[in-house]
Amino acid sequence: MTETVRLWARVEYDGTDFFGFQLQAQERTVQGELERALQQVTGRETRVTGAGRTDSGVHARGQMIAFDGAWRHELADLQRALNAVLDVDVAIAKLGEAGAGFHPRFDARSRTYRYTLLVRPERSPLERRTAWHLPYPVDVETMARASRCLQGQHDFSAFGRPPQGDNAVRTVSRAEWATGSDQHLVTFDISANAFLYRMVRSLVGSLVQVGSGQLSPDEFEAILLAHDPGRVKQVAPAHGLCLVRVDYDEGVIQ
Amino acid sequence: MTETVRLWARVEYDGTDFFGFQLQAQERTVQGELERALQQVTGRETRVTGAGRTDSGVHARGQMIAFDGAWRHELADLQRALNAVLDVDVAIAKLGEAGAGFHPRFDARSRTYRYTLLVRPERSPLERRTAWHLPYPVDVETMARASRCLQGQHDFSAFGRPPQGDNAVRTVSRAEWATGSDQHLVTFDISANAFLYRMVRSLVGSLVQVGSGQLSPDEFEAILLAHDPGRVKQVAPAHGLCLVRVDYDEGVIQ
Repeated sequence: MTETVRLWARVEYDGTDFFGFQLQAQERTVQGELERALQQVTGRETRVTGAGRTDSGVHARGQMIAFDGAWRHELADLQRALNAVLDVDVAIAKLGEAGAGFHPRFDARSRTYRYTLLVRPERSPLERRTAWHLPYPVDVETMARASRCLQGQHDFSAFGRPPQGDNAVRTVSRAEWATGSDQHLVTFDISANAFLYRMVRSLVGSLVQVGSGQLSPDEFEAILLAHDPGRVKQVAPAHGLCLVRVDYDEGVIQ
Repeated sequence: MTETVRLWARVEYDGTDFFGFQLQAQERTVQGELERALQQVTGRETRVTGAGRTDSGVHARGQMIAFDGAWRHELADLQRALNAVLDVDVAIAKLGEAGAGFHPRFDARSRTYRYTLLVRPERSPLERRTAWHLPYPVDVETMARASRCLQGQHDFSAFGRPPQGDNAVRTVSRAEWATGSDQHLVTFDISANAFLYRMVRSLVGSLVQVGSGQLSPDEFEAILLAHDPGRVKQVAPAHGLCLVRVDYDEGVIQ
């Protein structure tokens, strides 16, 4: 029997046809699909751990996973074999060796999400899976101004639920709005050490209310400071959200 | 009975699940879906004419269509009603009145297509419907240099078939390669007064051979000048292609 090594992989997926990342008995999930492919390629049952449990419909370009793998050939061959048996809506973008105790969630230093809006009266067939369609105008500059209060360390209870036994204090290092080369596509990039459940979608839902004049930037900041989830009136839909990257301290993964 | 008026519309579609634009008896096509929606909304059979007969799998952000419509309300209401009954993979981006004899194909002054490549070893779940995956590197600068010979008026017989009774002379006003903000996405934008059947896909297929060193820019130009379709060895797949816009002389459409 071959010894196992701890491996990490960067995973990209189109979340449209998945019931989220986390394994479920009856539904198709990203974790389930990865574990199926690992069993098929390596011939043994393999448990996959992910950095973030993305919701049903949420996409990823840079989800990070880890697993204990027994593989006697080159890692590039393992990656190619996995991509050959994985369904078309999930792929291994990169794969490498990690330290024995590597845990993609607990060891992560920061996560970056991108939320995409399509701002125009008509819906878009080509963006329908990856952007939230807003049929009314939003003021991107005002949303950017409102987002400044998110920078730094705050109790984000207003915008999400912490895991059991944890508090809601998180540190946001980046929160930026931008308009794309296609003027109708507006993106929000946010990085933090960690996120609460539904935090990005709750922030975007409220910031869109700022952009459309239903909330002022001061009222948005007041919601943040009140720590009361009942004051969040709009949560952005899952399909506009994408987990872009997960970062680790140098040397943790190779 | 209401009098009909000539109407034009700009149509966007995800070509993945269509058997191309043109009506077919047994298959789902964009024209068929538009005519179905028009019948449902206006209560009368309506024939739709398109500017370009895009192939199966080809997308559009700016296909132009025309039809004779009987409509007593605002045109904005017609557009909303059509978008409400059209399937999710096709939408009317804009709609307006045209002159009585308007024909979207014969009256078009120029067309612009974009072809998208995904250049990286691993396939991409999120770009799989809209980009041709090249798992080997290509030299974008060399492809751009080779494309310069396309500018101006040429007999493009090497790269496509003209309609019956027509010649293969077309005038290319723009042929530009660019690398996206995501370095793996490479785009080719080409505008011409008109295109031959499969012309963009044949050009891109050969230009990718230039980019990967299988052809030199001089050999590419020699193919153009030889007018022999037998010399084109690679045709790019349909799903990387998108009809971006169709332009008309000022005043033709409003």
